[in-house]
Amino acid sequence: MRQAGRYLPEYRHLRERAGGFLELCLTPALALEATLQPVRRFAMDAAILFSDILMVPYGLGQSVEFVESHGPVLDALNGTEDLARLSLAALPERLAPVYQAIRELAGALAPETALIGFAGAPWTLASYMIEGGSSRDFLKAKAWAYGDRQGFSQLMNLLAEAVLAHLDAQIRAGAEIVQIFDSWAGALSGEMIETWSLAPIEAIVARLRARHPDVPIIVFPRGAGAAYKSFAENLRGCALGLDTSVPLSFAREELQPLVVVQGNLDPVLLVSGGAPMDAAVERILERLGPQRLVFNLGHGVLPQTPPEHVARLSERLRAKGSGPP
Amino acid sequence: MRQAGRYLPEYRHLRERAGGFLELCLTPALALEATLQPVRRFAMDAAILFSDILMVPYGLGQSVEFVESHGPVLDALNGTEDLARLSLAALPERLAPVYQAIRELAGALAPETALIGFAGAPWTLASYMIEGGSSRDFLKAKAWAYGDRQGFSQLMNLLAEAVLAHLDAQIRAGAEIVQIFDSWAGALSGEMIETWSLAPIEAIVARLRARHPDVPIIVFPRGAGAAYKSFAENLRGCALGLDTSVPLSFAREELQPLVVVQGNLDPVLLVSGGAPMDAAVERILERLGPQRLVFNLGHGVLPQTPPEHVARLSERLRAKGSGPP
Repeated sequence: MRQAGRYLPEYRHLRERAGGFLELCLTPALALEATLQPVRRFAMDAAILFSDILMVPYGLGQSVEFVESHGPVLDALNGTEDLARLSLAALPERLAPVYQAIRELAGALAPETALIGFAGAPWTLASYMIEGGSSRDFLKAKAWAYGDRQGFSQLMNLLAEAVLAHLDAQIRAGAEIVQIFDSWAGALSGEMIETWSLAPIEAIVARLRARHPDVPIIVFPRGAGAAYKSFAENLRGCALGLDTSVPLSFAREELQPLVVVQGNLDPVLLVSGGAPMDAAVERILERLGPQRLVFNLGHGVLPQTPPEHVARLSERLRAKGSGPP
Repeated sequence: MRQAGRYLPEYRHLRERAGGFLELCLTPALALEATLQPVRRFAMDAAILFSDILMVPYGLGQSVEFVESHGPVLDALNGTEDLARLSLAALPERLAPVYQAIRELAGALAPETALIGFAGAPWTLASYMIEGGSSRDFLKAKAWAYGDRQGFSQLMNLLAEAVLAHLDAQIRAGAEIVQIFDSWAGALSGEMIETWSLAPIEAIVARLRARHPDVPIIVFPRGAGAAYKSFAENLRGCALGLDTSVPLSFAREELQPLVVVQGNLDPVLLVSGGAPMDAAVERILERLGPQRLVFNLGHGVLPQTPPEHVARLSERLRAKGSGPP
């Protein structure tokens, strides 16, 4: 989960200075600063690169804008004829500032603080690229996947290559762990999730491992529901990010025997804090810890979160000896 | 799932005549007409009352408006002090037009066409009532549930009474099957879903059964994910509505031995139609049919759906001998 964000006053300040969100991601000094802000404040065990999953569409040459209080806007792909607008060859240079930020971060972080890089998974990227932004029902993306399987596969294959290249470059620049976010896996039907979420991720993981056998990989198929089991079965050796809705009993009995799990505190608890937050943290640690668990939230930090609640959480986790999230 | 809707030209016409959505729900002749439209066109096995889950907040005296191309707007509850604004005693009279529509429908429908009534589940209703409408993160509703368990329980208990009263009145008016929609069950954490979705529904089901032992009850906890298993274990004798994301293998192996299942065609397939829709229908029937299955969509019909695709689906199902959805 992104650690920096609007809940931090120093981030809001930095964001104003940057001009736009894209500038923040693509200016190494600013991305470095945003990455370090939460680490300075909370002394996390790991820093997660400040970036965005839409760096890959941007790297492929699609126009990506972040419109204040609306969200991302992309020049939507309408069919295979639009794939010509995308160039895998252009990606390394367009994303060079991201890799530069990682190189600088690798030097700036204390050796005991791990650096996490990340990318969106092909399906989630495809959904933004086809819908032209966020979506409620993913009608356009799913209709393409259902109706023109060959054309959609072409896009998905291109995205798998791009995600692999992006993660590989991040590792070469100094990322020590990588995470793959399939934020909209839950929008896929129980039948499509294996085809368009799990299978492409599996292929990326296999190829990445061949190149970097020692780099841990975390896969977060948000909303996968009962299909989380298939992810665990097919991604042995990875860690599996659990969204908030995953019951701890299911995680412990069905998933943890197969994979390390990461998660899954409800971010709302970090907004309200107090005894309910403490109790929920305790429950996660008791049911899923201390082995084979990376404590984390089940989704991103909400802008309304008081930073003191994050501090309290970090301190409690450190006191438990599990390290901060 | 609501069968009538903006995808039907005759519905759009009726909606214009009605003036507003609330008027449509609360004018017996219009609700009757909206209910009958899809039955006339597609000769479904069952008709589902044209109404809305927000009838219960309206019945309790909360102000509910449906704002065109925005969604519902309610005068949000901000804490227990606002519960005084709600009156269980007022509900039967405020919702009398709904029961009148059911009485007229029971007379108008062919005896072989079953009439389905419905209500929202307490958690989903609470979320609209507290957020004042739809929500992305359910921050206000969940923060209340986490932070003031006693006050929130008071609201939830009131809602359980109201839902029970509403379903009971629908059955007495002529509904032959009832469905309970927990549309936002998936927003609850894996720990909260048992407390705030399953437990209240279980209690309502038990009390409704005591009064009407022969009326089938369908429970739809949308987004419950792996927790669907708990619903199946604790709602024996009910049918369980499956959202689109439920894998057919999980439904067959883990749920169907315990309950009848309903679902779960992706509504996007009904928009795109053709061979992919036919194949997906076939797969559901093969994997889950013909016993212990009520064929249905995994979510509501999308406005972009061509009515001919619904017609084709109905015909194919009828040809298969499973009856239309």
